[in-house]
Amino acid sequence: MGRYEIRLSGAGGQGMILAGIILAEAGVMVDDLNVSQSQSYGPESRGGASRAEVVFDEDQIDFPKVIKPDLLVCLTQEAFEQYGRDLKNYGVIIADSNIDISKIDSELKDNIYQLDILDLAAKKIGKEISANMIVLGIIARIIQKKISVEFIKKAIIEKVPPKTVDDNIEAFELGFDLKLDKRSYAYGRI
Amino acid sequence: MGRYEIRLSGAGGQGMILAGIILAEAGVMVDDLNVSQSQSYGPESRGGASRAEVVFDEDQIDFPKVIKPDLLVCLTQEAFEQYGRDLKNYGVIIADSNIDISKIDSELKDNIYQLDILDLAAKKIGKEISANMIVLGIIARIIQKKISVEFIKKAIIEKVPPKTVDDNIEAFELGFDLKLDKRSYAYGRI
Repeated sequence: MGRYEIRLSGAGGQGMILAGIILAEAGVMVDDLNVSQSQSYGPESRGGASRAEVVFDEDQIDFPKVIKPDLLVCLTQEAFEQYGRDLKNYGVIIADSNIDISKIDSELKDNIYQLDILDLAAKKIGKEISANMIVLGIIARIIQKKISVEFIKKAIIEKVPPKTVDDNIEAFELGFDLKLDKRSYAYGRI
Repeated sequence: MGRYEIRLSGAGGQGMILAGIILAEAGVMVDDLNVSQSQSYGPESRGGASRAEVVFDEDQIDFPKVIKPDLLVCLTQEAFEQYGRDLKNYGVIIADSNIDISKIDSELKDNIYQLDILDLAAKKIGKEISANMIVLGIIARIIQKKISVEFIKKAIIEKVPPKTVDDNIEAFELGFDLKLDKRSYAYGRI
């Protein structure tokens, strides 16, 4: 698939870093895939924004940060305004439904899929932190040709506290079953 | 302090990634400090080695990976053999006592401090995962002039499951109280 870059952005407490680590651990299970996972924090991030990144590549990864994401997740307006303009051609943005996307350049609008991630996490699962598992489910569907769903589930089971495995897998499956426009998971790059 | 690089290496399951994230979260609490935290996985890491890195800098961090660590932690022989030769001048290596360091270049021997991290984790705390909290305690002592111990404790409390906070803080304090040769925490770079 060549280099494939995922950026997860949201507020602190939404579990984006754990989601990034789980994606990285799942990537490690794929033969001959190199994975780099990182988060950067600067003084500007003290408002509570949180960002995690994962890079997959069959070749060695010399630069571990995302250059232009193939897949961008935004859970908050602030995250969307900071990162929403930065996307690879044919890339995909998954944005929570609470985000006002009207100000984005029209050329990117076709790349944005808005889903009820936070609402669903609050209503069906009852804990906002589950938003990250819903996000992982959505991503699992998008990248399933390259990283199998079972690897991502296995990484979830390894990384969450044992007593929370069932709730987390339930949230993951909710995300996986969310209806996405066909384009978002049938695109050819991965 | 300029750029300061920490590399944590061990086996999978020893919690090095969580330790890296906790250090990064503590660094964020320091005014005007930039932090980058990352882990890279390649096909060669499938033997179970685990490595996490944290970079602190008052300036912007353009390259988020460790170039040459100021502080290197090795919990396993494999990790030591892979990373033990790579250290900045005046850097510090914290190596578990189970590691045979006799093959290392003699010029680096003065930089190595061997401590009973894994034994202590097994005996006093009873869970090997606590090794990472002991490591955090040791690091907290070494870098306390730059990142306050209270920030690291706060980050631990935020990042570990609520029911495990007391055990984790206990392990952290065990690590903090381990006797280090004076050189290892009195050096002037930080």
